[in-house]
Amino acid sequence: MEAAIKQSRKVCPFLHKNTAATLRKLSSMPAQQQQQGGAPMNALLSFAQKCPVMGNAMATVQGRQSLLHTSAKLAKQPTRPLNQASIVNHEKNLIDERAAAATIAALKKSEQVGSCPYHQVQQPEQSPKSPYHRRLPATHSTNSTTFDYESLYHHELDKKHQDKTYRYFNNINRLAQKFPKAHTKDSRDEVIVWCSNDYLGMGKNQIVLETMKQTLNKYGAGAGGTRNIAGNCNLHLQLEAELADLHHKPAALVFTSCYVANDATLSTLASKLPGCHIFSDAANHASMIQGIKHSGAKKIIFKHNDLADLEAKLQSVDINIPKIIAFESVYSMSGSVGQINAICDLAKKYGAITFLDEVHAVGMYGPRGAGVAEHLDFDLNSRIPHANNGSVLDKVDIISGTLGKAFGIVGGYIAGSANLVDMIRSYAPGFIFTTSLPPANVAGAKASIQYLKKSSKERQMQQLNTRILKARLAELDIPVIPNPSHIVPVLVGEAEPCKIASDQLLREHGIYVQSINYPTVAKGEERLRITPTPGHNSKMVDHLVEALETIWRKNGFKRVSDWRAEGGGAGDPVPKPIWTDRQLNIVPGGGDAIHPYVVEVTA
Amino acid sequence: MEAAIKQSRKVCPFLHKNTAATLRKLSSMPAQQQQQGGAPMNALLSFAQKCPVMGNAMATVQGRQSLLHTSAKLAKQPTRPLNQASIVNHEKNLIDERAAAATIAALKKSEQVGSCPYHQVQQPEQSPKSPYHRRLPATHSTNSTTFDYESLYHHELDKKHQDKTYRYFNNINRLAQKFPKAHTKDSRDEVIVWCSNDYLGMGKNQIVLETMKQTLNKYGAGAGGTRNIAGNCNLHLQLEAELADLHHKPAALVFTSCYVANDATLSTLASKLPGCHIFSDAANHASMIQGIKHSGAKKIIFKHNDLADLEAKLQSVDINIPKIIAFESVYSMSGSVGQINAICDLAKKYGAITFLDEVHAVGMYGPRGAGVAEHLDFDLNSRIPHANNGSVLDKVDIISGTLGKAFGIVGGYIAGSANLVDMIRSYAPGFIFTTSLPPANVAGAKASIQYLKKSSKERQMQQLNTRILKARLAELDIPVIPNPSHIVPVLVGEAEPCKIASDQLLREHGIYVQSINYPTVAKGEERLRITPTPGHNSKMVDHLVEALETIWRKNGFKRVSDWRAEGGGAGDPVPKPIWTDRQLNIVPGGGDAIHPYVVEVTA
Repeated sequence: MEAAIKQSRKVCPFLHKNTAATLRKLSSMPAQQQQQGGAPMNALLSFAQKCPVMGNAMATVQGRQSLLHTSAKLAKQPTRPLNQASIVNHEKNLIDERAAAATIAALKKSEQVGSCPYHQVQQPEQSPKSPYHRRLPATHSTNSTTFDYESLYHHELDKKHQDKTYRYFNNINRLAQKFPKAHTKDSRDEVIVWCSNDYLGMGKNQIVLETMKQTLNKYGAGAGGTRNIAGNCNLHLQLEAELADLHHKPAALVFTSCYVANDATLSTLASKLPGCHIFSDAANHASMIQGIKHSGAKKIIFKHNDLADLEAKLQSVDINIPKIIAFESVYSMSGSVGQINAICDLAKKYGAITFLDEVHAVGMYGPRGAGVAEHLDFDLNSRIPHANNGSVLDKVDIISGTLGKAFGIVGGYIAGSANLVDMIRSYAPGFIFTTSLPPANVAGAKASIQYLKKSSKERQMQQLNTRILKARLAELDIPVIPNPSHIVPVLVGEAEPCKIASDQLLREHGIYVQSINYPTVAKGEERLRITPTPGHNSKMVDHLVEALETIWRKNGFKRVSDWRAEGGGAGDPVPKPIWTDRQLNIVPGGGDAIHPYVVEVTA
Repeated sequence: MEAAIKQSRKVCPFLHKNTAATLRKLSSMPAQQQQQGGAPMNALLSFAQKCPVMGNAMATVQGRQSLLHTSAKLAKQPTRPLNQASIVNHEKNLIDERAAAATIAALKKSEQVGSCPYHQVQQPEQSPKSPYHRRLPATHSTNSTTFDYESLYHHELDKKHQDKTYRYFNNINRLAQKFPKAHTKDSRDEVIVWCSNDYLGMGKNQIVLETMKQTLNKYGAGAGGTRNIAGNCNLHLQLEAELADLHHKPAALVFTSCYVANDATLSTLASKLPGCHIFSDAANHASMIQGIKHSGAKKIIFKHNDLADLEAKLQSVDINIPKIIAFESVYSMSGSVGQINAICDLAKKYGAITFLDEVHAVGMYGPRGAGVAEHLDFDLNSRIPHANNGSVLDKVDIISGTLGKAFGIVGGYIAGSANLVDMIRSYAPGFIFTTSLPPANVAGAKASIQYLKKSSKERQMQQLNTRILKARLAELDIPVIPNPSHIVPVLVGEAEPCKIASDQLLREHGIYVQSINYPTVAKGEERLRITPTPGHNSKMVDHLVEALETIWRKNGFKRVSDWRAEGGGAGDPVPKPIWTDRQLNIVPGGGDAIHPYVVEVTA
């Protein structure tokens, strides 16, 4: 009996994964397929049929109901749907051994042939009755139908279409010679890109491009192997040295992406630390969430940027147990900024280490572009750009970053202690078993980092353009989620209208801003995420602001005042920007100085 | 009580992960740290101290033993080590509620301060006694020491050093203008690379390189975003169309690597299929193993290339339950080849779908370089290079491949039905949440695929060089693991000698062949994995063969006859190569024709 329950648990789609909330939700969704006999069915019932216990039980009930249905049809009376409560109680029943024993005994007695769309066994002469099955060829010995994979794929896609989260990728070809312009599918149709993560235009930087072309000539197109087998060259080692130096750490390690860097590092590290607990900011990126999940470690989510909640949760775990606090510096979709210093202090107090994702901050903050942790001690790090200078940077244990956003190329990395980096290098499958980044990409990234260590004008101009755009939108009462960073998240709040706004910008105004919908942001928080660059000039800013105003008026989208009336946060006071006026060389009190339109930087 | 057991289970490093075999192994390994008082300790005891139940229990025992130890020391008699059996029985005890209750009650009563290297609480005036702990600053309220992360990293690295699996990456800079040569750290020191996965030298192909440089000029260095946000251009779509056409499938999807393609696809697909069972070849690549693990689906491993074992295991699962058979065409480390046709037939018979990894075969097999599945119907696919021509290719549901080996660039992909590909595109975090491949890499890959669809001379010459090298090594009784593919795995069979052979080749002969050790191959199967290319000429072959003979003689390495005497498989009859004589245009019976040294291809 125990074995039967365990087996059911393994194959049952409810017990395997779903929460009670999901089950409730499923019960109110229409089913993809109607049950045989035409009785009404919801998604929960449809899925219940996949369970060997409940599916068979339902088939038994349905056998009886089918007779009722036929009689009812004759008498033109509606049939009564199956009792949903019996399905919702299923999880509870399975835990109750006696109840389950009774169910299974009853099923064994009935020996009913299933009629669910996934499990039905067909007689050879009958054609499959459900689109979830395909008929096996006549030569097949069992004459069964089997699971219809294509219908499941279709069903999963249909869910995306129905809740408007299905993604249509825009065809955007960013033009290096005309940054920040791109052409669409048709090369004659040019648009202005306002949502790229090539924040500083380093992807079109001539030093970077020349370096890459020379490297292609010298070392070819690909690495030709993993780092261990023929895919490790001087350039990889030099890039890692450059990154370690950037972050004031003894070592760094390059991955094919920062998604892989986060996933591989967190999963490997936390699985090595005995009994590890990971404290994860609620707004963390999917790559960290995956890494934590894959580690098998205990995960404790703390409220986004909530130090009190984090501390309470740290306190609840024995101080001797290893702990990782995983968080970000700039949260990409809201532009909010992690409290790096305070979190490092909490980590020290409770015996934790910190894992800081600086993906959206590297190249953008700090005197050398190392990110927000470097920026917090701007002057100190300008004077003494090395480890152990007493800055916050010294307090962060592990930093992850990307080579694909402000640095303009592709790839990701971590920086940390020599032993930590060597351990990840030695154990992480996501690092070990993959072809390393091509020499040309590595050389380009290295050139870009070196350039941005010395040149601050790109990040300063980016910040000025951000200030200008935020100020212009505030004047028009268009809702920007308040934040101290370089992200300009314009709130729409619904999936379909958000896509409409994005489509109208592209088709009617020649402006590309992607709509950001679930799962990238929570439902109800759909937005247009705008990212100014140093390449956007005053004419482009005017054009964008006018286009947004037109679209807001045309579609009757909510303004700041509307959100405020509903108690939303879009109109909250704007936090002080990370880049201060002084750091941006803005004359104090000089009104003109903070409101100029910035001309294009030619790097 | 139940809660206490559950809590213990969560944090206990034994119950959490380890098998009984691991526990036995740990009990025979020396501990990194000796326990306080100097009593002998093994790795199992050391780890046991991390458990809040056993750790405390041991501390209690140790408190008593410490007294005994002191007396013994005075009396110059050795102390008796802790009873290991009590640790091994720990898992059993925890399941026995009464036993656990008794243990915990005893612990509560003792209120003993722990003395294990991970959990010890220190008095403020004492200095930390174990290197696994670091002292917190005096300001810290609890005056505790906390977990010493650095010591754990060091310990994990030390394990690698001790079992000789620690990896020293060779510094190899492959020279596009001198393929297959590379320079080492010193650019004046050139070596011949014999182990790259740039199998066909496409990384130095002039058409590929020119395409990439032009794309850099036009579209810049990076994609600037995810596929959904500003990172999707014509080139991505064209590459996917090219790949779909290559594999005779309706659709394809590009990932940053094939590691990610395999991981993301298998984990997403299997988690979507209700109650899915995955049948995985025992020799599958780490990326598939990770994907299967991450899916949470039931995994059933079948013996490498063993159809009878696979069928028996398929039979054991209800035909209606969704199933995936995951396997490879060319297994990279042994060169063995999956039985694609027969496995597809089994899949059909038992209602499974097939996931075929062609990573080491794309570009290399088939009239257009689509891989082994295409090669199996060489003539048919030459005449009718399209879907639904009745070839084996039509029977494979999902194919994964790489752009980073024979195609010479970087990145990975899947090809399959339109709905399958669209579902993965819509749901897989590893695809959604990452910056897409740069336009230049994508354009290079597209150019490479197009080139190899039309040109077969590179793969033919690679095969000829493989035949020649295998024949030459056979003449010298040097053991090559027999296989029908392009891989030449020369068996050494031990980690350290394998590394020595690799080092000697590099330093004494100017030849780079990486030693392949655990975890890439099983312990005891360490090898030199040699990969001939069309660029290796007769002089290079002579040079390599002579160097290997010298090294085999010098180190007294086992020959084929030695392995055969031990019952090993290195001397088994060589399977018929995938590429037939006819397909390689070798004149039947023309001895000279199969033994020429192939001249360098200039592509």
